[in-house]
Amino acid sequence: MKKIFLNESDIPREWYNIVADMPNKPLPPLNPLTKQPVGPEDLSPLFPMELIKQEVSAERYIEIPDQVQEIYKIWRPSPLYRATGLEKLLNAPVKIYYKYEGGSPSGSHKPNTAVAQAYYNKQEGVKKIITETGAGQWGTALSFACAQFGIECDVYMVKVSYNQKPYRKILINTFGAQVYASPSNRTQAGRNILAQDPDSPGSLGIAISEAIEIAAQDEHTKYALGSVLNHVLLHQTIIGREAEKQLEYAGDFPDVIIAPLGGGSNFAGLAFPFLKHKLEGNSNVRCVAVEPASCPKLTRGKFMYDFGDTAGYTPLLPMYTLGHNFKPAATHAGGLRYHGASVLCSQLLKDGLIEASALQQLECFEAGVLFAKAEGIVPAPEANHAIAQVIREAKGLRKKACKKQYYLIYVVMAL
Amino acid sequence: MKKIFLNESDIPREWYNIVADMPNKPLPPLNPLTKQPVGPEDLSPLFPMELIKQEVSAERYIEIPDQVQEIYKIWRPSPLYRATGLEKLLNAPVKIYYKYEGGSPSGSHKPNTAVAQAYYNKQEGVKKIITETGAGQWGTALSFACAQFGIECDVYMVKVSYNQKPYRKILINTFGAQVYASPSNRTQAGRNILAQDPDSPGSLGIAISEAIEIAAQDEHTKYALGSVLNHVLLHQTIIGREAEKQLEYAGDFPDVIIAPLGGGSNFAGLAFPFLKHKLEGNSNVRCVAVEPASCPKLTRGKFMYDFGDTAGYTPLLPMYTLGHNFKPAATHAGGLRYHGASVLCSQLLKDGLIEASALQQLECFEAGVLFAKAEGIVPAPEANHAIAQVIREAKGLRKKACKKQYYLIYVVMAL
Repeated sequence: MKKIFLNESDIPREWYNIVADMPNKPLPPLNPLTKQPVGPEDLSPLFPMELIKQEVSAERYIEIPDQVQEIYKIWRPSPLYRATGLEKLLNAPVKIYYKYEGGSPSGSHKPNTAVAQAYYNKQEGVKKIITETGAGQWGTALSFACAQFGIECDVYMVKVSYNQKPYRKILINTFGAQVYASPSNRTQAGRNILAQDPDSPGSLGIAISEAIEIAAQDEHTKYALGSVLNHVLLHQTIIGREAEKQLEYAGDFPDVIIAPLGGGSNFAGLAFPFLKHKLEGNSNVRCVAVEPASCPKLTRGKFMYDFGDTAGYTPLLPMYTLGHNFKPAATHAGGLRYHGASVLCSQLLKDGLIEASALQQLECFEAGVLFAKAEGIVPAPEANHAIAQVIREAKGLRKKACKKQYYLIYVVMAL
Repeated sequence: MKKIFLNESDIPREWYNIVADMPNKPLPPLNPLTKQPVGPEDLSPLFPMELIKQEVSAERYIEIPDQVQEIYKIWRPSPLYRATGLEKLLNAPVKIYYKYEGGSPSGSHKPNTAVAQAYYNKQEGVKKIITETGAGQWGTALSFACAQFGIECDVYMVKVSYNQKPYRKILINTFGAQVYASPSNRTQAGRNILAQDPDSPGSLGIAISEAIEIAAQDEHTKYALGSVLNHVLLHQTIIGREAEKQLEYAGDFPDVIIAPLGGGSNFAGLAFPFLKHKLEGNSNVRCVAVEPASCPKLTRGKFMYDFGDTAGYTPLLPMYTLGHNFKPAATHAGGLRYHGASVLCSQLLKDGLIEASALQQLECFEAGVLFAKAEGIVPAPEANHAIAQVIREAKGLRKKACKKQYYLIYVVMAL
């Protein structure tokens, strides 16, 4: 069997909230002026109340609304593959599974949270959502989700990706949304950056600032973030919960889970449902977050309070960060060019419950080409980071003649 | 239920050969010099013997080799969707299913035959395969398939698509194959075209000539075609055979099947297994092939013997054609820019067993945007033709207040 499918009726009906099981709960976000924990009133100009509740919830499971479940069925459940081709090439004591989120309407895991966020906004009467996008995946996902609920959508796309990926703009437009290259001259935040550096390639931090600035100006317009925040990570746990069922059918449990980390949502989505077993003392599963060496917040950043965006519009978040003014190099893995890591992933890393690894771009691309030839799926530059890490580990195990390790990694398609 | 999945064990183990059931068998291809039917010796410089046998076979079912079945499992079985979103928008007496081949490694149905062709070539010791590609789908599929079997691959890509779709070139290169824009100066056929028209946007006919010219020069190098030929259509029947099982689970049988027609392979792949029931007198299913108004061989071409390529290297094929020198406009549906239709589809059309419809590009794109918003999947320009046709028919049925019609259409993703 090459892949393990589930039926639509097997799609989990609840998201998993790891906060319930964390030994050290995440520190609260702070209001940058008062240095006091932010309350719902600080967040309500940007987010609908239901998402604010989820952001601070300590409930272990949160029910997925029926309408969200219905839309999930367009691409869920997603297949879990056995990487038979890669295993053969590596010839090491490893069994490798990969959860493939590339079959979604935008080609990544992003619609898992986009649909949920659009749903809650619609419930609360929001007419328009503004967002940013790095590699274009999140912008496509949100424009798809907004089309499903009849909500308008504007996307600020990091300029380097906007230029590298013109077809992403076409996809977003096809779903009826508008796209602007960021930094733009439509916002004060954008104009400030352009004044300093007219050729700025942009960054997620800048694009977030632009989107927030516009969203905050109109009461019927909200903001949506594609990663980092607790509620985003929550929605992504559908990935890991499905994978858990699939591995159960296969009779396996992973020793190591590997996923790339940009803001933290695909990593958390895949890893948290398995990490739960470790937090409960029932497993020693290693969860490895892989970041680009050019944007190494987990391995070389500091755990501190920092802004989530470049202009300093967001609350202060307790996280591993390179500083909100960090300018990541214009590498191809646009989805990993973010200065910070989600609060939940940061706390778990600080507590030694997850691991981090930073890899060079060329090693990752070589891994992606190898994977494409072996598995027939050309993975995205972001996903290549997870593949490169599993290849590294497999080579290490081969040398040491270790006992077989079971790997679960995250993969999406290149386009 | 949004979609009907099958298990890997449900993948059909045989392809269906419609020749066994056709009331009028297809006329033989002719040697252009002797005007006599071509024999295996005419084809053996280009194709492995097993594919030549399939090309002339009258067996109803042909077994799918185990190794091909294993590779099929990377993306098969493919989902059959109920187009609930589109149905709601149309508000007409229609129930619409679509078979979605967009989840394959190259994003279309092409790997169904690419893998089979690469397999039979490998069995007979072929080291390298040369091919053409229109929109880039076939070239990607064959380079993926060749990577699976360790065969070298060169792709001649129609220049207009080569320029419109640079990322297709990257995909093909990632699988280890080479791509050349056609017409190129690497062949006599290409040089002749460039001498007449240095700005030629190319066409499938020209690209086929280039690939054949190179392949014929070396005994270890063969040629592969992505559509038109009987064995290609045969391999694609896996699509319709799966869809038949899926509709059986749903308790339905289609009244109308709609698919775009470039050379004929996706149309035949979806329609032939259902058409079998009509040929047996058990069904009145309508099978509608949709072509672009700018390349209307089915609706405005002639049924006659013509070359399959522009330079006149192929045998003469009995088919609906616009003439092998026809220059299709540089429209976006690159996969439909071919002057002829497969021999099998042509004979069936001549005998009134299938229908044809020609649609304008703008109507097709509008249909595609509607579909994207309704279903969340952005369809390819080629697939838009089938969607536009179903929308036309649904509007007609709504006006006439007809009884509900069950549609089955073919869809792939845009990228």
